Order: sequence, then structure tokens, then C-alpha cells
Amino acid sequence: MTSSEQSPLVAMVGGGQLARMTHQAAIALGRGLRVVAEHPDDPAAQVSPDVVLGKADDLEALRRAARGAVAVTFDHEHVPQAVLRALEADGVAVHPPSSALRFAQDKLAMRERLVELGAPAPGFWRVVDPEQCPWPDGGVVLKTASGGYDGRGVWFPQSQDEAQEVVAQLLEAGQDVLAEEKVVAKRELSALVARSPLGQVAAWPVVETVQENGMCVVVVAPAQGLPPGLAAAAQELAIKIATELGVVGVLAVELFETEDGRILVNELAMRPHNSGHWTMDGSTTSQFEQHLRAVLDYPLGDPGLTAGVVVMANIVGGVAANGMSMDERVHHLMARSPRVKVHLYGKEPRPGRKIGHVNLLGAAADAPAVRAEAEQAARWLSSGTGLSGGE
Amino acid sequence: MTSSEQSPLVAMVGGGQLARMTHQAAIALGRGLRVVAEHPDDPAAQVSPDVVLGKADDLEALRRAARGAVAVTFDHEHVPQAVLRALEADGVAVHPPSSALRFAQDKLAMRERLVELGAPAPGFWRVVDPEQCPWPDGGVVLKTASGGYDGRGVWFPQSQDEAQEVVAQLLEAGQDVLAEEKVVAKRELSALVARSPLGQVAAWPVVETVQENGMCVVVVAPAQGLPPGLAAAAQELAIKIATELGVVGVLAVELFETEDGRILVNELAMRPHNSGHWTMDGSTTSQFEQHLRAVLDYPLGDPGLTAGVVVMANIVGGVAANGMSMDERVHHLMARSPRVKVHLYGKEPRPGRKIGHVNLLGAAADAPAVRAEAEQAARWLSSGTGLSGGE
Repeated sequence: MTSSEQSPLVAMVGGGQLARMTHQAAIALGRGLRVVAEHPDDPAAQVSPDVVLGKADDLEALRRAARGAVAVTFDHEHVPQAVLRALEADGVAVHPPSSALRFAQDKLAMRERLVELGAPAPGFWRVVDPEQCPWPDGGVVLKTASGGYDGRGVWFPQSQDEAQEVVAQLLEAGQDVLAEEKVVAKRELSALVARSPLGQVAAWPVVETVQENGMCVVVVAPAQGLPPGLAAAAQELAIKIATELGVVGVLAVELFETEDGRILVNELAMRPHNSGHWTMDGSTTSQFEQHLRAVLDYPLGDPGLTAGVVVMANIVGGVAANGMSMDERVHHLMARSPRVKVHLYGKEPRPGRKIGHVNLLGAAADAPAVRAEAEQAARWLSSGTGLSGGE
Repeated sequence: MTSSEQSPLVAMVGGGQLARMTHQAAIALGRGLRVVAEHPDDPAAQVSPDVVLGKADDLEALRRAARGAVAVTFDHEHVPQAVLRALEADGVAVHPPSSALRFAQDKLAMRERLVELGAPAPGFWRVVDPEQCPWPDGGVVLKTASGGYDGRGVWFPQSQDEAQEVVAQLLEAGQDVLAEEKVVAKRELSALVARSPLGQVAAWPVVETVQENGMCVVVVAPAQGLPPGLAAAAQELAIKIATELGVVGVLAVELFETEDGRILVNELAMRPHNSGHWTMDGSTTSQFEQHLRAVLDYPLGDPGLTAGVVVMANIVGGVAANGMSMDERVHHLMARSPRVKVHLYGKEPRPGRKIGHVNLLGAAADAPAVRAEAEQAARWLSSGTGLSGGE
């Protein structure tokens, strides 16, 4: 087709499930996604014909991907600042820009910036000497300043001695180390927003995220029983962070909700996020479409819920207890739960690895049953157990 | 990934928008769609990496596409019976099978089979001599028995003389000619169902289809003001036809609703259909996912509505009155209507050609306003006119 009639092209660095699902959304907007993938069988490279093979720190690969694209965006935080800045110097529209993305790459910089913004957050210390590792009443969580992802790069020492040992090891490995006050949270929340270059922001309802082994595995939208004032405060906080940091695209603000009714910022991610997978079936605008609208500088879509409650549950790799293939498990699940939406990522089911998710919608009054059915479906697809009482 | 863990592969013959949207659905089920396309820039070939280039009557191309696929299916009716039967003789799972598909390929065979089934339908005659062309009180519609598609292959003569002339021309061109009693319809409906090889059938709510220049351009789901008894009769009729003909996949039964409260079968299509595009955003299970579930022999998904009313309006190619590119028109539309879902097919906007559609959901009580907004959005994207009063 003539180029003047073609829809604009977006290139995404990273070939994982986030790029895979962004490709689905890009098709509807008239043009598939260009993907920078390390391997031809990465989840997004399996399903998009427009693949540039290369690593996230390969400037020449990213330059090839940027050619003919109106914007370059990301499905992870691992593109080095020097590479981002070189692309920007070329005149490429990098969304989010390097100046924003650094706060998702460097937890120390993020923590310092949040203090400047007056955002509620746990106390923190940069630790440069094991002997000086702080040990407040509740203890600390130790993090490497950069490279943390989905539970890796985070340690939960049980004593000050153990904390000092971990710090010593990390410093020896050349890591910048951060100690954060350990928060006794009632639960975890996520405030997801999207921001366009023009500054328009759209906020999805605040959700509850349920962690297992340091990994978000269940999301309930909206967070049940959250006081409206606290929900509004969480949305306002996420909007403020997106605006002040100059984010373009989706921003996930992961939060602790404390027993005494406060929210504290745990982590930031500047891309579509696991806590937003429910939007694919449960919001008028999915996070993947919204991310594209933002990086294309289109007006943002309506982020409202399409049902009273929406529950997402992750499918985690492992060996099926009953020896059934995933295909057989999907078959049985569909017979049992004809309303469950299945999303598979095309990944090897290695233990502990997210290989897909399910979404289920229902009436607000049925939230506990909807959650139970979604968790049951994900458990069945993960492990081949628990689909009915007898199994 | 190891082949035992891969999701099963489906191959679809035809690279149009139906295959393009089926690829979106296939991604969620764990494996993209393999597409047989004539050109690398066909709508589906633009977005799937698994393309076999070839025409629909190219048996060797279809054999290549079938290799490694668990089923072969179609985004149109143009694969010759001989080719279908050769694939079946190879042991390929052809869904729908040749024995069913012939009734979507040959209108005479379809009409005769519907009579055997006792299905309500207009009277019809095979015409082999122009002089013998029937002319009942309301006149006739003339059709070629095969090759009709989207208004082409259908004639509406105003007099018996004109009918005889058309028949003479068609017979001379070697066509089999069918005359059907012209139905004075109150409106047109579509009853969409899907059927699996096992015989499970799922029926979406009956919808109203609005035609313009012989082309379906607006769909309202569910059909407004349709008596429940007539809706149930239409669903039962579609289920009966799917079952008796042995359809596998989606079947669209296009219907006339008469002033005196009857339904009559107009056309059959055995594939995802324009009258089912609303399901992408408005049903728990889209027609594309359901078609895949059927041809994969998975249990079918819930075909229920996710809103009180859903309106689909097609975007038709043409020259934008204001000289705006499609990209600019999309931009303006999104600012105006943040709840409209846009689906573009990646096609050259040649006049009269469907190049996309929009879906809009709303409360049942707002049906007229939802329809007006969807039609306005589609008109704007089609022609660059009518987005607001002043334009």
C-alpha cells in the first residue's frame, strides 16, 4: 500500500510476552509491531513478521529498528542509558525518554526522586559498608540499585548479621546496594496509568496484586474494599509521578497498603505490566493499546472497567502432575470454564516462569467466586491439578 | 520450544482481514496463524510471520500449508471442491469439510438442501432459458450459482424484460443462474453460530445487519425489538443448518425478517463473517477465537454479550474530503470518542472497499445513541466528514 496511507510503525525493544501482546493491539491500529528480539523464537518474534534480531544494548540493531518507525519503546528496562541517549541524539522519538526511564532502571535515583516529589515511600539508605547496614525495628529489604526484576535482585534478611553478609557479597560483586525499611503491608496494590507526550494521562482503577515467591501471580480489579479516598490518592500519586518524571506510555506504580491506611511506593515500571494484564479483557482500553496510543501521541482511550470485577491469574511453568500436555489442559479448562479467557505466551514451561495468564470477568458481588475460578483455572494450566475436587 | 509443548497450529486459506483478525486470536491461544496468501502485503500476511504464498486453487501450496497443521480452514469460499477433496484424501482435517462447504459455494445446492431441511426461504428457480425466467408479483433477484460475494453476482432487475436480458447474458457467460423470489423485508438479520467436530454448537445473539449498496455496513447486537420467539427460531434454524450440513467453525445465516413476522434464509457463509465483527469487543468469545476453538476441536467459549448493546460500523475506502490521512482521522476520532474500538485491516482505501470497522458498546437503553456514535465514527474514518456538526 502507498506509504502515505499506511498506519505509523512502532518498534519495541524486547521480544517477550509484553511485546507479543502489544503486537496483537498494534494489528487493530492498522500496523503490526516491529520487535527487537534476541532469538527468533522469543514470544513476540514467533508472531510478528517484523523482527530485528539483536540484544537490548546493541545500538546498531536499535538503529535498524528505529528506521521508518515513528517511535521506539520497550518491553523491559534493560537498554543502557548510553544507548538510549545515542538514539535520542539521532533524533529518534524514544518513549519513555531516557530521562524518565532512568528512574525505572536505578532504584537509588528513583527513591531520591520520589523524596523530592514528596511521594510516600519506605525509608531507604544507600549502603556502602556492610558494617553500616541499618537495622530498624522491622528489619530491611536489600536491593541492588539496578538489574532487579520480578523478585531477582531483592533479598529479605532475617537478622542484621545476615543483612551484613548479603551487603558484603553484593558490594564485592560491584553492585550499588540499597536498604529499604521493611514494610508490614496489609496487601499490595498497583496504580496503572498511561501518559502521552502531550501530557494527557489516563488512569485505570487501582488493583490489588497478590505475590507468591516474590512474583505477582493474581490481580483483582478493582482492589476490593479499598477506601475511595485511598484509591483516588493512589491514582493521583501515579499521575503525579508520570507527569513529573515525563513518562510516555504505561507507568505501573506498585504500592504497599499499610494496616493504618497509608500507601507507600514499592516499585515503578515504565511499560505494560503484569498488574495490567486484566485490561485485555476487562477494560475498554487494554494496557497494550493504550501504550501504543501514548507512544503514537494519539488521544488516550477510556480506561474504565467492562465488568464489576476482573481477575487475572498467571500460568506458571512446571511439570503437569498428570502428564497432560498444555493443549490437553487447555481443552479440559475450556470445557469446565467457558468464560475464562486464556492468554498463552509461547514459552517453554520452565519451573517458576510465567508462561501465560487467564482473565475472568464477573459481577462485583461475585468477586470471591470469580477469583476462585480464575485461580483454579491458572493452577490447572500451570500444574494439571485442582480443576475439580477429585483431581 | 519443544514440539510437545507447542500449541497446535491452524492454517487458514486466504490472506484477508478475516485471517488477519484470526491471527490476533490465535496468538492468545499460544500459536499464531499460518496463512495462505496471494500477496505478501495481503492484510493477514502483513502481520503473521507464517505465510505460504499461493492462490486458493493451488493444491501444492495448500499441501505445504497443511504440513504440521492440525487443521486447514478458510477466510473465503473460493477453494475448489477438487482441491478440498484432494486435501481430505491426504488425511488433512479440512474444517469446514468439502461436504459442508459446497453449500456455501453453490447457491443452487444450498437452496435445494434448505428445502430438504424444511428451512424457511424464498422460492427459487434454476433458469436455463431466458424466456422461462419466472416473474412472480414482487419480481425476482437473479444470482449466479457460484462466485457471488458481497453484492457481486447478484442482480435486481426492474422488469421481466430486464430479467430476461440479464439471464441471457449470464447463460452466455457459462453461468448457472438462479432466480429467487424478491422478498420485501422489514430488515435483515444474521444468526451466527459455531460448531465443533464433536457437534457442540454455540449461538451468539441474533443481530440486525444494515446494508448499503449491497454490502453489510452496520450491525446492531442484539437486533433491537426482535420478538424473543423469532430470535430463538433464528438461532434454532442456524443450529439446525450447522448440524445437518456438518459445518465446523463459524456459520453465518443471513436472514430476511418480513413484515408479517417470519424469517427467511438469504445466504450462508461458513467462516468468520462481517456480521460477527462486533464480537471482538462485545462478546465474551470473539468469532475469531470461536472459529479457532471449533477447528481445534476445543470446547466452545461463552457467546454472550458483554454490554447491553454493541454496534459495529464498517470503514469503507474512499478519498477523505478534507485531505487528511487515515492516521490523522484516527487521531481526531480518538479525541472525540475515547470508547470507540478501531480495527484497521491494512488495506489500500480503494472506493467501496471495506478497510476496517469500529465497535462501540453501551447500555441497552442508549442503543440509538450508541448506533449514531458508531456510524459517525465509521463515516469520519471512511470519508473525513461528519465528525461534528460543523464539518
